[in-house]
Amino acid sequence: MRLKNVPYAKEKLSSYPDIVIMNQSFKGKNKELFKNDNPIFVELGMGKGTFIIEMAKKYPNINFIGIEKYDSVLVRALEKLIDENISLSNLKLMRNDATNILDLFDKNEISELFINFCDPWPKKRHADRRLTSKIFINKYLDILKDEKIINFKTDNRKLFEFSLINFNDLEFDFLELSLNLHEDPIFNIETEFEKKFNQGPIYYLRVKKRF
Amino acid sequence: MRLKNVPYAKEKLSSYPDIVIMNQSFKGKNKELFKNDNPIFVELGMGKGTFIIEMAKKYPNINFIGIEKYDSVLVRALEKLIDENISLSNLKLMRNDATNILDLFDKNEISELFINFCDPWPKKRHADRRLTSKIFINKYLDILKDEKIINFKTDNRKLFEFSLINFNDLEFDFLELSLNLHEDPIFNIETEFEKKFNQGPIYYLRVKKRF
Repeated sequence: MRLKNVPYAKEKLSSYPDIVIMNQSFKGKNKELFKNDNPIFVELGMGKGTFIIEMAKKYPNINFIGIEKYDSVLVRALEKLIDENISLSNLKLMRNDATNILDLFDKNEISELFINFCDPWPKKRHADRRLTSKIFINKYLDILKDEKIINFKTDNRKLFEFSLINFNDLEFDFLELSLNLHEDPIFNIETEFEKKFNQGPIYYLRVKKRF
Repeated sequence: MRLKNVPYAKEKLSSYPDIVIMNQSFKGKNKELFKNDNPIFVELGMGKGTFIIEMAKKYPNINFIGIEKYDSVLVRALEKLIDENISLSNLKLMRNDATNILDLFDKNEISELFINFCDPWPKKRHADRRLTSKIFINKYLDILKDEKIINFKTDNRKLFEFSLINFNDLEFDFLELSLNLHEDPIFNIETEFEKKFNQGPIYYLRVKKRF
């Protein structure tokens, strides 16, 4: 994600408390944000929101929470909603760091997780920071309910190899797997990164925990 | 593998019984072929033998058996050995169909298996014929001993996705995984196909059965 500072971002985000949750945790009571019992799907590092906004439009009976740590990026998602006059009662944008996920969600609180084009942290000594490290996957298992489904897309080959090994080690079933998503007949909503910057193949994996 | 008919192939193969085993099974007594107790590594569909000959040279304390069903291809491997005056007491070439593997080997008789650029059988109704289908993997499990290691290379993306899913479902550990083998610092002996015909990425997986 290319970062351009947006000086008014924080103020603007704070002006839309119905849409944007600023650094606040609703752990154990996230469903109160939506005032219903629909399943909650979470995107970690939602960026400018292209993906999660489209998902929220397409699936009105699912609640979506997008997490993004940069004000200057998150504000673009908010502006998309405002400019296009989109009102989505099933979408909340959380200004927070995805690494804090256990502070944001309680056991069994979310139904599916989406990780799209996360930081590959290429240096070996930073491997634990990758959002598909075993440390993180085990955190997701804590908060995911039922089938514990995780959807993962990246254009980074080494990160995808690392992720396949981890999901295999931790005994997930591979529900969908593509080593070139844009060439396969798999349902896909493109992120802004996919639309604008990507050149090589997109790797995609959808997994659920084997019991 | 491009097939050119070699009219003298069968006769030539039959003239070297110390190297070539023609359609004969040594099930349960393959070690007698080598007159020692060294581990046996098998390559299914060895083609013109580039890979297995290099392996046999590199690892003299391992016995190698290459299986190939086409006389006209197998004879090229034999000719390589004759022309280059290579004498390898740890290498046997078996003229047989890899699908007959349970007729050729007994329980715990082989230590590692190599599958390089096998037929992808792209049509769904032929999926069971792919050498990494669950049907075949379960056959390999019957005859592999100890860690039950399988090494697999292909340039066919759909076949590799299919194989990853099957090895994951059947609870193998992924020991090595590359989505672009030629760009990675992994030890690799190239097959003749890799050297001559390949253009896209080579996919590689080394697995062992989880217990």
